[in-house]
Amino acid sequence: MKEQVLEANLALPKHKLVTFTWGNVSGYCEEEGVIVIKPSGVPYKDLTVEDLVVVDLEGNVVEGNKNPSSDTPTHLMLYKSFPNIGGVVHTHSPWATSWAQAGRDIPALGTTQADYFYGSVPCTRKMTDDEVKGSYELETGKVIIETFENRDHLAVPSVLVHSHAPFNWGKDPQDAVHQAVVLEEVAKMALHTYQINPETPVMQQSLLDKHYLRKHGKHAYYGQ
Amino acid sequence: MKEQVLEANLALPKHKLVTFTWGNVSGYCEEEGVIVIKPSGVPYKDLTVEDLVVVDLEGNVVEGNKNPSSDTPTHLMLYKSFPNIGGVVHTHSPWATSWAQAGRDIPALGTTQADYFYGSVPCTRKMTDDEVKGSYELETGKVIIETFENRDHLAVPSVLVHSHAPFNWGKDPQDAVHQAVVLEEVAKMALHTYQINPETPVMQQSLLDKHYLRKHGKHAYYGQ
Amino acid sequence: MKEQVLEANLALPKHKLVTFTWGNVSGYCEEEGVIVIKPSGVPYKDLTVEDLVVVDLEGNVVEGNKNPSSDTPTHLMLYKSFPNIGGVVHTHSPWATSWAQAGRDIPALGTTQADYFYGSVPCTRKMTDDEVKGSYELETGKVIIETFENRDHLAVPSVLVHSHAPFNWGKDPQDAVHQAVVLEEVAKMALHTYQINPETPVMQQSLLDKHYLRKHGKHAYYGQ
Amino acid sequence: MKEQVLEANLALPKHKLVTFTWGNVSGYCEEEGVIVIKPSGVPYKDLTVEDLVVVDLEGNVVEGNKNPSSDTPTHLMLYKSFPNIGGVVHTHSPWATSWAQAGRDIPALGTTQADYFYGSVPCTRKMTDDEVKGSYELETGKVIIETFENRDHLAVPSVLVHSHAPFNWGKDPQDAVHQAVVLEEVAKMALHTYQINPETPVMQQSLLDKHYLRKHGKHAYYGQ
Repeated sequence: MKEQVLEANLALPKHKLVTFTWGNVSGYCEEEGVIVIKPSGVPYKDLTVEDLVVVDLEGNVVEGNKNPSSDTPTHLMLYKSFPNIGGVVHTHSPWATSWAQAGRDIPALGTTQADYFYGSVPCTRKMTDDEVKGSYELETGKVIIETFENRDHLAVPSVLVHSHAPFNWGKDPQDAVHQAVVLEEVAKMALHTYQINPETPVMQQSLLDKHYLRKHGKHAYYGQ
Repeated sequence: MKEQVLEANLALPKHKLVTFTWGNVSGYCEEEGVIVIKPSGVPYKDLTVEDLVVVDLEGNVVEGNKNPSSDTPTHLMLYKSFPNIGGVVHTHSPWATSWAQAGRDIPALGTTQADYFYGSVPCTRKMTDDEVKGSYELETGKVIIETFENRDHLAVPSVLVHSHAPFNWGKDPQDAVHQAVVLEEVAKMALHTYQINPETPVMQQSLLDKHYLRKHGKHAYYGQ
Repeated sequence: MKEQVLEANLALPKHKLVTFTWGNVSGYCEEEGVIVIKPSGVPYKDLTVEDLVVVDLEGNVVEGNKNPSSDTPTHLMLYKSFPNIGGVVHTHSPWATSWAQAGRDIPALGTTQADYFYGSVPCTRKMTDDEVKGSYELETGKVIIETFENRDHLAVPSVLVHSHAPFNWGKDPQDAVHQAVVLEEVAKMALHTYQINPETPVMQQSLLDKHYLRKHGKHAYYGQ
Repeated sequence: MKEQVLEANLALPKHKLVTFTWGNVSGYCEEEGVIVIKPSGVPYKDLTVEDLVVVDLEGNVVEGNKNPSSDTPTHLMLYKSFPNIGGVVHTHSPWATSWAQAGRDIPALGTTQADYFYGSVPCTRKMTDDEVKGSYELETGKVIIETFENRDHLAVPSVLVHSHAPFNWGKDPQDAVHQAVVLEEVAKMALHTYQINPETPVMQQSLLDKHYLRKHGKHAYYGQ
């Protein structure tokens, strides 16, 4: 699991999703009920397996000499609330972060998004001053959960935190990084699409269904 | 032919036209009446000659252990309907895909486009719900053919599929990839041109004629 | 110190902050009351420790065979006026320079900026014709100082010089380069944010406080 | 001279100014009254000194087995009409080409441009149908010369050919390539500047004078 989490963290700069240390990946080990997460503030180029921190679901450090990422409480909230996820990725990737700063959902405008997201990628509401001043990183997790109250978190495995940046998840750390790359690509194309045609409507439902469902669920036939 | 198709597929990530496996190249072998195409879901970095799939024009796998690309029916429709093409490329290259999502033709705004396209690059109409729900990949091919009913497919060897992404073709796989690179470049420049001057008219016909015809057809003198 | 200044200068092209020789880094040596600065016009790929120039705070060359950067008087003005800085970086990095040319502050729109800047990054007023025609590089320093009359230069360690380009500073040359990279990133994202939502307000004060103060000052807990 | 021209041609892909063979550099040898120019259609990666073509000022091939670039008549017109230039570069670099397609001059908005151009970079008028249908490449040269009737071609060593792309010149081939890189950079920043502030005025004359004249002419002191 540590090797997986290390590799997934190192994939972030490789895919140009992070500047400096602006991102982190964790992985969940269901048998032991712990997560493995990037330590706080360590540059990617120096990161080794030994630096990774093991934390239980209450946030206690179980293994490791470094402090876990400051975003650990957000990661933990996601693992505890979203069934069947095994990896979480947070980045400040620039295109997705621009949508988060603008406070806007990324609507589904084409099949690239439909291949991975069953609809728009939501942006959370603004957090209240009390939430920000309180247990901020925990509250960040809560506002994400709230955003998915009436959504399937497995069908839309990314979120934009308002005025902040994206979080992504998946069945394992590699899958979550894959999702983060896709999010950045659709965020970029959605902006350019609106620049070409500001009146672009969301894609038709049948096409969204076709692309999403040919890759996901029991009738999937794509890529097999 | 397999070597050619492999090389053409590997050229896609090299030219930054694809993220992950979002693209595929095929080549047509006229003597044997078959096409060679990328298998479904195999990452470019792992792709070998052995992975390539040989398919006849009815879509039967003639050779290969993997499944052919899910887009195979679209490729086959193009080969069967467009005389004198020997290669087809599909990508989700981001600039061209943005135009496809916007549902807009890329107008000819300058000589870069005129060197390769004898006019605008068309965007198909939206597909109907029935087409999407039916034999979707085959119908995608049909809507491309419909778009070229009154156009010369050799003079404009690219199309944008509405809400989806581009397809390109050429005399062989390498030529089709070359076209895909050009399309991405003119898609990018067309957007920036309109951002500088939203009232930019299409280029004058005489200049389009000059640039296209000095490179193509019996009076060509460019690059020789 | 020379090694540090060399390394910081070489980091500029590595981070794609400069084209040709469009930038320079200096470092301040408090004990000796001198600065080490890039020589004028030497390409980064040829730059060695021997090329660096040592200049006292009055601008006299103390060591080195080359002329110091033409921007030396601006650097010196910053060191003399801003307590507790040990490095200064000037670049024409394209996103930040676009904001400088537009004559606009970069407002704080999200947590990426809040992690490094306690508010907006200011753009100076235009310089007067007399200032431009006089001791131009010195006057450039003065208009920066004027811009920070009611600001904490350590809480906002970058500035955009109107119609020109950014200057950044930090506790040492590496820190100033780090700041220059951050500035370029937030400049890019701020433009894209406004393109997505032209009505984007500045971020809420509580979130700015939270992100800035969890990393800076006596209550910092981030990255430790 | 051939080595110089080869190196300058190879610098085009290195600086990302060209896609495929979309560009060419020539150099002028005053003693012999000939130019050395890239052959037509040869990919940069295959280009050798032996491929270069020597042409006299009337366009006769003096040396070389390949055809000179199709743009040779434009290059020759520039050498014959513009005193004191020793190198010419043509590219379809995307940012500058977007301005050419938009039919707009690039106004001087900041000191980056002022360091190299004493004012705006002009776009030619559209060519007439007769010019296009006639000796097109020669007429392209003529419309450039016409654009500089009341301008100093050494103070503004680049031009945008309407609906086409830029040409640049300099004292030698390397210098002309340097100019082409600068042009691309200022073209990019000018677009972004207007996106940030559509009302951005041209820079003040005193600042343009200061930056241009501290680097050029008899009172230059910059970079020395």
